[in-house]
Amino acid sequence: MAEQRTRLSTTGDGDVAAGNGLLDRRLFLRGGAAAVGGGVSGLGLSAPAAAEPLTVAEWTKEPGAPFDGYGQPSRHEAKVVRVATNPPNAPGTGASRTPHQFLSGMITPNGLHFERSHSGIPDIDPAAHRFLIHGLVKRPLVFTLEALARYPMTSRIAFLECAGNGQLLFAKEPAAAGVQALQGLVSCAEWTGVSLALLLDEAGVDPKAQWLLAEGADAAGMSRSVPLAKARDDALIALYQNGERIRPANGYPMRLLLPGYQGNMSVKWLRRIKLTESPTMTRDETSRYSVLLQDGRVAQFKFPMDAKAVVTQPSPGLALKGAGLYEISGLAWSGHGKIAKVEVSADGGQSWAPAALSEPVLSKALTRFRLPWRWSGGPAVLQARATDETGYVQPTRAAQVAERGAKGIFHCNAITSWAVAANGEVKHVYA
Amino acid sequence: MAEQRTRLSTTGDGDVAAGNGLLDRRLFLRGGAAAVGGGVSGLGLSAPAAAEPLTVAEWTKEPGAPFDGYGQPSRHEAKVVRVATNPPNAPGTGASRTPHQFLSGMITPNGLHFERSHSGIPDIDPAAHRFLIHGLVKRPLVFTLEALARYPMTSRIAFLECAGNGQLLFAKEPAAAGVQALQGLVSCAEWTGVSLALLLDEAGVDPKAQWLLAEGADAAGMSRSVPLAKARDDALIALYQNGERIRPANGYPMRLLLPGYQGNMSVKWLRRIKLTESPTMTRDETSRYSVLLQDGRVAQFKFPMDAKAVVTQPSPGLALKGAGLYEISGLAWSGHGKIAKVEVSADGGQSWAPAALSEPVLSKALTRFRLPWRWSGGPAVLQARATDETGYVQPTRAAQVAERGAKGIFHCNAITSWAVAANGEVKHVYA
Repeated sequence: MAEQRTRLSTTGDGDVAAGNGLLDRRLFLRGGAAAVGGGVSGLGLSAPAAAEPLTVAEWTKEPGAPFDGYGQPSRHEAKVVRVATNPPNAPGTGASRTPHQFLSGMITPNGLHFERSHSGIPDIDPAAHRFLIHGLVKRPLVFTLEALARYPMTSRIAFLECAGNGQLLFAKEPAAAGVQALQGLVSCAEWTGVSLALLLDEAGVDPKAQWLLAEGADAAGMSRSVPLAKARDDALIALYQNGERIRPANGYPMRLLLPGYQGNMSVKWLRRIKLTESPTMTRDETSRYSVLLQDGRVAQFKFPMDAKAVVTQPSPGLALKGAGLYEISGLAWSGHGKIAKVEVSADGGQSWAPAALSEPVLSKALTRFRLPWRWSGGPAVLQARATDETGYVQPTRAAQVAERGAKGIFHCNAITSWAVAANGEVKHVYA
Repeated sequence: MAEQRTRLSTTGDGDVAAGNGLLDRRLFLRGGAAAVGGGVSGLGLSAPAAAEPLTVAEWTKEPGAPFDGYGQPSRHEAKVVRVATNPPNAPGTGASRTPHQFLSGMITPNGLHFERSHSGIPDIDPAAHRFLIHGLVKRPLVFTLEALARYPMTSRIAFLECAGNGQLLFAKEPAAAGVQALQGLVSCAEWTGVSLALLLDEAGVDPKAQWLLAEGADAAGMSRSVPLAKARDDALIALYQNGERIRPANGYPMRLLLPGYQGNMSVKWLRRIKLTESPTMTRDETSRYSVLLQDGRVAQFKFPMDAKAVVTQPSPGLALKGAGLYEISGLAWSGHGKIAKVEVSADGGQSWAPAALSEPVLSKALTRFRLPWRWSGGPAVLQARATDETGYVQPTRAAQVAERGAKGIFHCNAITSWAVAANGEVKHVYA
């Protein structure tokens, strides 16, 4: 440790970007490393190699495992799983959250994409499934999967976020929870499917239609009303998720995809779309998924998810092992477009430094941000704050609670805070 | 069928982009559909809905399956697997290919990323694995995975292609094979890891070093020489693949990633990098992975994979079901940068139409291209031809065979041809 601290001191103070050890985001960009006084040997994370540094490991001494048709993660990664919360006696009703504390990058692997189901995951026979477009159309149409798969397709990388993600931040006291439990109802994938606008053109939309009802083939018959304008904009009937057919938990064999909108409007196991004059007022848009306000009113039909950033590493469960250099990394997104800026604080919001954003930065997709941090070993409170391309800035928790009141559940995009203790433990706090 | 043909005829000839039914790539872009004479009802793929069109399926009548920690594809997708080829009695030596005929988009899901192993997949304990940088450096360094995971990281979406991908195109007669067997040794993922340049700076590279040796911890000790310039450019020590830790078959817990270079230089299960004055001339760069030329000479150390495009749908095994509208879709990539253009032909290369490229188009990543096609029901030969941002144009098979001779194996990027017969069957041909 003494050695490590000495070497860290070779990194000049000129690289400090904000309080409590936040360093310049360009410090470790390619070519930039050499510019740092003393070189990046100041990192001090590696060990000097001994004269005969590597022994031949057991696994190198004999041929390894054969090929398999569909690969799985290493058995040493068994902790990297979704965690479900559901009521007693209803194993398929609830949600299952992405373990962002163990992931990096912008893509969520399909096996770890969050799930929200209202009556379990139906076992749909793709050959027997039908998708209907009806209501206020000139030609009601029914599609088999095979027919739909012949249409022209488009692909886009998009996040999905449950409207209830982050709701624990409305609790009076900070929940003893980490990023998976607090913010695990958001994931990101490359979705491929048929433009809904194209299918609506084929059906011929009656000029009286302003909304549509989308209904799933699950036992809950999950259904939501969607403005026609969104359907004509960027809605997809998605068939593929990260290259392969959509997973059963995510809507196999087809789902609606409404980029940027609250997750359950992207109806899974889609069986019909009905064009209507006005919203249908289904159970899932009247009993919930609306935003309660401080004054007792309800903001119904608030669809896009506002900009949010969350630090995923360090975060609760990932204790720091001694003072020194760390990377603060996390995810940011906005239902209104691209992320323009993510700022990071290590002193609970007193000072902020801009993070580096990993390319590609895409509209309505997760964006990975990163910032180097030299932890002094003293207390720190880590936060991230997103600004999207509309200029909207993510609010503090105090501001959001003031706006929404104590009964808030949905569309919480307040700043999440992680406190780092002197022993390296990381804890959810309000700051 | 009569109905279908009648409706297709409503699409005007003004949308024809090249011979044998290729349509304008903008035909089905958002907003463009309505501009087509007769509307897109000309698609003719859906069926008019009956008065009571949807029955309630069995799977809707009872609650579905509960949540799971790590999800899997639908049981109805069991055919979507990699297929391995390997010599008798060596189950872990050979290759396993991505089923591109069943996939769409640019990302390859981790379970289907191609594999090439020289002595099986080692079962590495990540806590015991060590990575060494030594040779011509000031400070030889050894890294645990835990130490490496604290370094600043970067993410990028990149393809990997085995240098032997497409080698069957050098055969005298066209192999009776589809896109998986012919071109399945290419895949694409988002990789996240530590810049090798950063670690080299920390070790302090001796000015005499111009190359490095990268060695794997598999039983084959697979090793390759890499120019130092590439290592300093965009090389990563990758720890994550599409968000999660790298899969065992793809190098768990760490691999070298050299974007755009022949696949096996991105050494899996990386255990050491040794800085050297010149190439080490390992077995895997002298006995193979070099390009034989027509005149008997060998182009050794040809590293970047040249631009290639391949039609994935339609392709052998996916028979067309009657004349009418189809989408021609495929993948294009270049080891030299971004794809600038993909052209598609339906008449064996007599005429070409530009395909639409799905965003984001990224350097050294797979790019999905698409073009609508109105199949007349007569014979057709489908081809795709890539041009990259350097201006390089993918060669015909005839041109590449003339350059390389009959003994070619590696770096085949000739145009692949699929013949469509009147009965809808699709077959690999030379054209």
